[in-house]
Amino acid sequence: MIIVMKPNSGEVEVNHVIEKVREVGCKEILLEGTNRKVIAVIGDKRDIPPEYWDVIPGVEKAVPILTPYKIASREAKKTDTEIKINDQVLGGKKIGVIAGPCAVESQDQINFIAEGVKKAGAIALRGGAFKPRTSPYSFQGLREEGLEYLARAREATGLAIVTEILSPEHIELVSSYVDVLQIGTRNMSNFLLLQAVGECKKPVILKRGMSATLDEFLLAGEYILSHGNPNVILCERGIRTFETHTRFTLSLSTVPALKRLTHLPVIVDPSHGTGVRDLVNPMSKGSIAVGADGLILEVHQDPEKSYVDGPQALTIEDFESLMSEARAVAQAVGREI
Amino acid sequence: MIIVMKPNSGEVEVNHVIEKVREVGCKEILLEGTNRKVIAVIGDKRDIPPEYWDVIPGVEKAVPILTPYKIASREAKKTDTEIKINDQVLGGKKIGVIAGPCAVESQDQINFIAEGVKKAGAIALRGGAFKPRTSPYSFQGLREEGLEYLARAREATGLAIVTEILSPEHIELVSSYVDVLQIGTRNMSNFLLLQAVGECKKPVILKRGMSATLDEFLLAGEYILSHGNPNVILCERGIRTFETHTRFTLSLSTVPALKRLTHLPVIVDPSHGTGVRDLVNPMSKGSIAVGADGLILEVHQDPEKSYVDGPQALTIEDFESLMSEARAVAQAVGREI
Amino acid sequence: MIIVMKPNSGEVEVNHVIEKVREVGCKEILLEGTNRKVIAVIGDKRDIPPEYWDVIPGVEKAVPILTPYKIASREAKKTDTEIKINDQVLGGKKIGVIAGPCAVESQDQINFIAEGVKKAGAIALRGGAFKPRTSPYSFQGLREEGLEYLARAREATGLAIVTEILSPEHIELVSSYVDVLQIGTRNMSNFLLLQAVGECKKPVILKRGMSATLDEFLLAGEYILSHGNPNVILCERGIRTFETHTRFTLSLSTVPALKRLTHLPVIVDPSHGTGVRDLVNPMSKGSIAVGADGLILEVHQDPEKSYVDGPQALTIEDFESLMSEARAVAQAVGREI
Amino acid sequence: MIIVMKPNSGEVEVNHVIEKVREVGCKEILLEGTNRKVIAVIGDKRDIPPEYWDVIPGVEKAVPILTPYKIASREAKKTDTEIKINDQVLGGKKIGVIAGPCAVESQDQINFIAEGVKKAGAIALRGGAFKPRTSPYSFQGLREEGLEYLARAREATGLAIVTEILSPEHIELVSSYVDVLQIGTRNMSNFLLLQAVGECKKPVILKRGMSATLDEFLLAGEYILSHGNPNVILCERGIRTFETHTRFTLSLSTVPALKRLTHLPVIVDPSHGTGVRDLVNPMSKGSIAVGADGLILEVHQDPEKSYVDGPQALTIEDFESLMSEARAVAQAVGREI
Repeated sequence: MIIVMKPNSGEVEVNHVIEKVREVGCKEILLEGTNRKVIAVIGDKRDIPPEYWDVIPGVEKAVPILTPYKIASREAKKTDTEIKINDQVLGGKKIGVIAGPCAVESQDQINFIAEGVKKAGAIALRGGAFKPRTSPYSFQGLREEGLEYLARAREATGLAIVTEILSPEHIELVSSYVDVLQIGTRNMSNFLLLQAVGECKKPVILKRGMSATLDEFLLAGEYILSHGNPNVILCERGIRTFETHTRFTLSLSTVPALKRLTHLPVIVDPSHGTGVRDLVNPMSKGSIAVGADGLILEVHQDPEKSYVDGPQALTIEDFESLMSEARAVAQAVGREI
Repeated sequence: MIIVMKPNSGEVEVNHVIEKVREVGCKEILLEGTNRKVIAVIGDKRDIPPEYWDVIPGVEKAVPILTPYKIASREAKKTDTEIKINDQVLGGKKIGVIAGPCAVESQDQINFIAEGVKKAGAIALRGGAFKPRTSPYSFQGLREEGLEYLARAREATGLAIVTEILSPEHIELVSSYVDVLQIGTRNMSNFLLLQAVGECKKPVILKRGMSATLDEFLLAGEYILSHGNPNVILCERGIRTFETHTRFTLSLSTVPALKRLTHLPVIVDPSHGTGVRDLVNPMSKGSIAVGADGLILEVHQDPEKSYVDGPQALTIEDFESLMSEARAVAQAVGREI
Repeated sequence: MIIVMKPNSGEVEVNHVIEKVREVGCKEILLEGTNRKVIAVIGDKRDIPPEYWDVIPGVEKAVPILTPYKIASREAKKTDTEIKINDQVLGGKKIGVIAGPCAVESQDQINFIAEGVKKAGAIALRGGAFKPRTSPYSFQGLREEGLEYLARAREATGLAIVTEILSPEHIELVSSYVDVLQIGTRNMSNFLLLQAVGECKKPVILKRGMSATLDEFLLAGEYILSHGNPNVILCERGIRTFETHTRFTLSLSTVPALKRLTHLPVIVDPSHGTGVRDLVNPMSKGSIAVGADGLILEVHQDPEKSYVDGPQALTIEDFESLMSEARAVAQAVGREI
Repeated sequence: MIIVMKPNSGEVEVNHVIEKVREVGCKEILLEGTNRKVIAVIGDKRDIPPEYWDVIPGVEKAVPILTPYKIASREAKKTDTEIKINDQVLGGKKIGVIAGPCAVESQDQINFIAEGVKKAGAIALRGGAFKPRTSPYSFQGLREEGLEYLARAREATGLAIVTEILSPEHIELVSSYVDVLQIGTRNMSNFLLLQAVGECKKPVILKRGMSATLDEFLLAGEYILSHGNPNVILCERGIRTFETHTRFTLSLSTVPALKRLTHLPVIVDPSHGTGVRDLVNPMSKGSIAVGADGLILEVHQDPEKSYVDGPQALTIEDFESLMSEARAVAQAVGREI
């Protein structure tokens, strides 16, 4: 931590800061600059937030030197983490594609989609049973019935099952049916839920909050890791900006940026990240070109009939074309699908 | 709903859309413009999202005419809603100020602050017992012990108690101690929590999500209202933008904008909305000048000693000055504190 | 400047940075932290951007300690700057209100408005003669004819004249007619224009770029100041965010934040900052409550007839009410209008 | 245009709107919905902004149906526009890469870089002679001397020359030396400059304003097109968002989104768009994968020695690797470099 003092702060303030530095078990070095006094704090106390120092009289600002997360950091683990999803691995040379409908509607529907995406090369099936909906008047999901359909689709195809989890209360039930738990963008800062999935061992796909910084995103991952679950997959899904031509701004630079900061695998959701079907294909290829370890995509047997998927769902035919084009891009960057 | 067709869409697409319009029980009017065909949908089906239409072949975009929320809307209720908080009322001519520490630390602390803010004119005491923290390494609150301290501070001062609720599981416990439940910015879209507080009758302070549009904010309020709880207080607490001189951008135009859209009372949190102690005073006065029905403020007996409050907490002396200055502004705009 | 080295950087990199520090005439202090090496650079070289250091091998990031602007800073001048506008002063105890139409349309129009706003208490008349328009198909202003009308309105009312300047080429012409030059939000980073108005002595209203940070805003002011013109008035006019209920997000915390950083007067433009007529009145009062030194407002004799003013222009009656309400708020915060 | 009336608007207001519709030469269709009256305006008057209607009493909002730009629109011209840059073509099957230093420093420097990037496959050389700098204390460019160096580098290598233009006054001078004019992000709304380059015939690279919507970006292009210059190349260069791990958020979905809206070629600037050297390579490949027609990149002989390029410039060796990797991605998406 570097503490910058206000221009008019005197010896009393400086000494008081030094006292506080020593109180928390750190050492200080006082630097007298041309216009400002600066106090360097020596010692790894990254759990003390900059705000702790900001608030002391005479302090102008406190600048952290270390990242606020530890276990998630690339410094803590140099090699890329690979995560087992049933008999597949996500995070190595192979790019993993997860596909399926936004919401499970029926056994026939989910089986039909599962077979389609499996044939095209997906490694897992996604499908929502508990749906977070912005409007109280919207369809909220089939709940346990949906989980049963998903489990039977796994039996039929061998695909691992991914579904969103909304509450710590649902973990036991949902875990008994599915293989990978997904935390949605609106729950990235639901810390009780992060703790709860941290205490289970299922792989977790953690979606970036739509207004989360990378530090906040990695701290959310750290919550899960620090509660004992090492199987965290980070998912960029678009951020909220002033742009209106897409539902969110899918910030692909997050992928290589995250891969420098953390050893965790990083996947992308171009369906929600754009909200526009015609953009899903190019942004999927773009995701692979920038180094994503996987994609999560919405596929529906008949997007026009689907309330929930909205305008971003691909048909199975769209998905087949995408997979074939994405394979070429993967190969061009030395990966495979 | 107004459905705009793509420039190259033909009779087949138009007829297909018309079929869908009739399917959901609405009537259509087909408009042939100079460059585009447009289909006006007649009938109040605001629960059908624009996405339902966007996805149909030949449709360029669907433009909703009605607001997606009903109960919360000013059209549904013309008069301002006033909400009873114990023996006080929030939402009428009188501006209500809620104050207290970010986190409850001890009985002495909370009593000391409660007495201080009561004397200065606060109508309720805020204090966190369950704390949502960005980092897993930060202090998470005193939990039930904190609730007990709060309840005793109420006995001592008569102030109503406001505390944040993080999970539906906690509602029974928390409700047994406090008078007003607060939903934090990170939980504005935690729909299970919104439903749960909707089924209880305690007044709820709903903070705006830091990247929520006003429609999303009002739909979150609608969740609570539609589950039976009419006592919703909306709270602007700053949005995430590119600005870095404050922690968030406290968008005060939200206050008069909301008051045109809804009958619910609107308060402001200048402490979290700026994250900078020196800005809390001017932004509190600004909030009152633009028409806020109340303020929620962080006050700490010794901000320097407080990890959690961070650099935005006021001392009791700061709070006293603020109240006296705020009173003058309230009077200038025909209100009182 | 504080230079943080990468975790794996060795002696060679550190020595190379130290060499560079000495090359620019500074001294270094090497700090060996628990996990990182940090080099403090002693010497006021704020004209060397952080990027200069970032780029050196082994450097993770460079953190500036000093503000990048000098003349504009509160450190350089403790007392508030007051700026003479003809026989009026902007920046002291008195709050100055500037009002008028977006575009000058005719002599009658501008005289009518000038008399109206003068009577209600405005200190200057604004009116556009050269209009920056987003669409090439929109009305671009009356140019010199408009300037003549403005000059005659000054003769008739005694009001000082404020108009926007679009190009260094126009300065001579425009200066010969008007009293205050305005730089619009789209030109805040038009550095040739900033230099040009810096070389003239007329007071300048510099509007914040709609995506400018406060540092960038103050550096734009520094351009003008450093070219010899001390008469700079800063104007907050809203920033671009994800919000859509207003045209821009009018960030009022900028006012007190700027007043801590700079001695220059700060005014607010609630007309463009919201783009919604009904919000202009409350946001004007809010601006005064947070400490603004003035307002700049759009007033039109018949807003419905005006293409350019758009939906934010006040009628003269609206303006009269606003002035009377604003006066009460000004008094409440110890100022006057 | 679709005009939505306020819920409480009566016959008088509706008739008044209809009168205004007819006044501008359009026809109206009145729709009586369940909760609202809506007036559809028939006739192509896209030069009348929605604000014209918004302002009329009783109107809630006006929703435009047509894009505000005409010549730039995909409707106006179905085939992709290809632009000749000396003996090269930008916009067809071949992806064009433009590279060079941020600022021209000397003849030797620019020749060295020109030869390096030419050998690696660039089709044009970029280099700044007039530099827009945020700080008045920064280096502002070599001006005409820089243009001379660029022209000689063209003689030596045959590469076309691209340079930024800051002012209409410079066009004659700059045009006499260079082949392509670049409008920087800070000048995207400098309408006088847009007009001036519109009146010349040199190809223009128009960079997106850092807070411009796609409509505003395309309207800026329309300025140039409507003044007679059809050779407009659009360049995405990142937008300002809350993210801090990159200087800007490089929104790659803009590329396929623009290519649906316009026939103009679209290129990407990953150097400024990220501001981080390590991200330039992946984001360049990502740009090609999403369908960009070209790249513009900063290359410097010795980035460490360069004040201006900052931390995003590639070395010539970096550029060579990038070109070889980018070639593979181009091939994977059916293009070539």
